[in-house]
Amino acid sequence: MPPILFNTVGNDNSDYIKDEAVHVKNPHLDSLEEDILYHFNLGTRTHNLPEMFGDIKFVCVGGSANRMKAFAQLIHRELVLPGDVNDIQDICAGTDRYSMYKVGPVLSMSHGMGIPSISIMLHELIKLLYHARCRDVMLFRIGTSGGIGLAPGTVVITDKAVDSSFRPRFEQVVLGNVIVRSTELDKDLAQELLSCSAEIPDLAAIIGDTMCTYDFYEGQGRLDGALCSFSQEEKLDYLRKAYRAGVRNIEMESTVFAAMCHVCGLKAAVICVTLLNRFEGDQISTPHDVLQEYQQRPQCLVAHFIKKRLGIAK
Amino acid sequence: MPPILFNTVGNDNSDYIKDEAVHVKNPHLDSLEEDILYHFNLGTRTHNLPEMFGDIKFVCVGGSANRMKAFAQLIHRELVLPGDVNDIQDICAGTDRYSMYKVGPVLSMSHGMGIPSISIMLHELIKLLYHARCRDVMLFRIGTSGGIGLAPGTVVITDKAVDSSFRPRFEQVVLGNVIVRSTELDKDLAQELLSCSAEIPDLAAIIGDTMCTYDFYEGQGRLDGALCSFSQEEKLDYLRKAYRAGVRNIEMESTVFAAMCHVCGLKAAVICVTLLNRFEGDQISTPHDVLQEYQQRPQCLVAHFIKKRLGIAK
Repeated sequence: MPPILFNTVGNDNSDYIKDEAVHVKNPHLDSLEEDILYHFNLGTRTHNLPEMFGDIKFVCVGGSANRMKAFAQLIHRELVLPGDVNDIQDICAGTDRYSMYKVGPVLSMSHGMGIPSISIMLHELIKLLYHARCRDVMLFRIGTSGGIGLAPGTVVITDKAVDSSFRPRFEQVVLGNVIVRSTELDKDLAQELLSCSAEIPDLAAIIGDTMCTYDFYEGQGRLDGALCSFSQEEKLDYLRKAYRAGVRNIEMESTVFAAMCHVCGLKAAVICVTLLNRFEGDQISTPHDVLQEYQQRPQCLVAHFIKKRLGIAK
Repeated sequence: MPPILFNTVGNDNSDYIKDEAVHVKNPHLDSLEEDILYHFNLGTRTHNLPEMFGDIKFVCVGGSANRMKAFAQLIHRELVLPGDVNDIQDICAGTDRYSMYKVGPVLSMSHGMGIPSISIMLHELIKLLYHARCRDVMLFRIGTSGGIGLAPGTVVITDKAVDSSFRPRFEQVVLGNVIVRSTELDKDLAQELLSCSAEIPDLAAIIGDTMCTYDFYEGQGRLDGALCSFSQEEKLDYLRKAYRAGVRNIEMESTVFAAMCHVCGLKAAVICVTLLNRFEGDQISTPHDVLQEYQQRPQCLVAHFIKKRLGIAK
C-alpha cells in the first residue's frame, strides 16, 4: 500500500480537519459479531478495515467501473504517489458488483446505474467508513447526465437533487411504508467546486438543480425507448417545466446519494457532465472520443479540488 | 460466430414456433434514421443486428456479469456447440455497463442491480430483438434472492412479481406522472419450469410470489444497513405479512422485468435461488463455495428447459 499521503504532504488549507467521525444511524450494528459487506466481498472479521481504509478523506463514486479506475489512476498521477499507476488493484476483485480503488487518502468506487444500485453501495460504504474509524470524509459523485438547455460538455455542480416532480426529496420505502428524506447537499462545497472550476482552462461549469429519475427512457421523457406513449410536444413541455423549476441536468442517482449522506452527516457533492442537450434530442450520438473527453471533466474538477484541499495544487 | 443451433438440431417440441415477432410500443421508433443502443455500444447503422441476433430464441438475464458469462459457457457445453467455450466474447465489450454473450439461439446478458439498471437494459434489449427481427423469443431472469420461510438454496419460480405492499403491479413514472402496469408472468411457462425442476436431482423448486424492492437494506427489512429505524420484531412482522400474502422470496428487478415483457407481449419467467432464510437473519454468511453452487441452480434449470425445448434433453 502506498504511504498515507494525507499525513505526508503539506497542507495550507486545514478546514477539512474537523475531527468528525463517520456515523451510521443503526442501533443494531454494534451488536453484530461480524459485519459482512456482502457486495464488496469485505468483512470486519476477515479484513482489518481501520488499517486498510482508516486514512480515507475523499470518496469519489461514479457509475462505470472503467471510469472509476481511470479516476484512481488520475489521482495517483496528480498526487505524485509512489508506485506504478498500472499496479492499482480493485479491492472488490472478489465480486463483480462494484469496483473499488484506493490511492492515498482517496477512495474511487463504482456504483452501477440507478438508485437501488448506488443505495446498496452507499449502505456498505458508510459502514466501511464507520468500521474503519474514518474522520472528516467528503463524498463526491462524479457522473454523466443529460443536460437541459446547456451546451453538451457543461459540468453541472448540483445545488438541489430533485425528484421527477422537481421536489428536493427522496422517498424511501421502509417495511412497506414511505419515508421522505431531504436531499440537501452542502452549499459551501458546491461553491468551492465552482471556484475551482474557474481555475481549469476550457471547463464550463454551473451550479443548478439535478433531476434524478428511476428510468432513462420514459422517466426522462425520451422518445426512443422500447415503450413511449407521449408526443414530442409533451416531452418538450415536461423538460421546459423542469428548466423553469431550476433543473439543468438529469441523472439517476443523486437523490438517494444526497439523502443518505445528509442523514449520516457526510459532506457531499454531485458533479455531472452533460452529454447532450435534451431540448435537441434523446440519442447520445456524439463521437466516442468527444464523450470520453467530456467524462474526464468532473474527474479533473474533483482532482483539482482534492489537490487544493491537500495544499498541493499549483 | 458458431452456426445457428436452432436450425440445426432436432426439435421434438415445436410449441415455441409460433411466428410471433417481437414488438416495441413506440410509434416514434420507426422514424429514427439510426437507433443507437447506447448502453450496449451497438447501433442499427454500425451493426447488422438481424445477422448478429436474428436467430435468438431464448434470452437469459441476471445481475452479475461473471455469472452470465458462466451461464453462456454452460449453455455452450450443454448444447454441444462447436468452438472453444473459452472463446465466447462479450458483445458489449466496448462498454462496462452490461455484458452480453451469444451462444447459438441463446443470449446471456447481465443487467446490474435494481429496477433502473435492468430497465435501461430491457429497453435496449427489446429494441435490439425488434431491429434484429427476432421471433418467438422467451425471456428468463435468473438471479439470487432472499428467501422467506424456505431452506437456503431453494429455487423460486415466480408466480406473481409484487411490490413492497404485495400488489402485482409496477409503478412507472412517465413525464412526472405515475402509470401502473401489470406484472403478470406466463403461468404455463412457470409450470413447465417447475416440471423441469423435478427432473434435476437435488434441485428443490417451488412456485411462489416474488417481492421486488428498490432497496436491499431498509426496503427489505434488514437490520444491518447503515440506516435502520425499526426493531427485530417490526422486521419479522413485515416478513410474516409478506409470507401470508404468498411472497416466498425478495429481489430487486422482477416487477419491471414482468411489466415490460407483458407490455411487449414477450413470454417471460423469473427464476431465483434463495441465498438465506430471512426469518433467520439478514447477513449472507454462507461459505463462498456453497453460494456458488446455489447460484448455479437457476442456470441448470433454465439450461435443462432450453434443451427440452430444442428437443435435445436426455
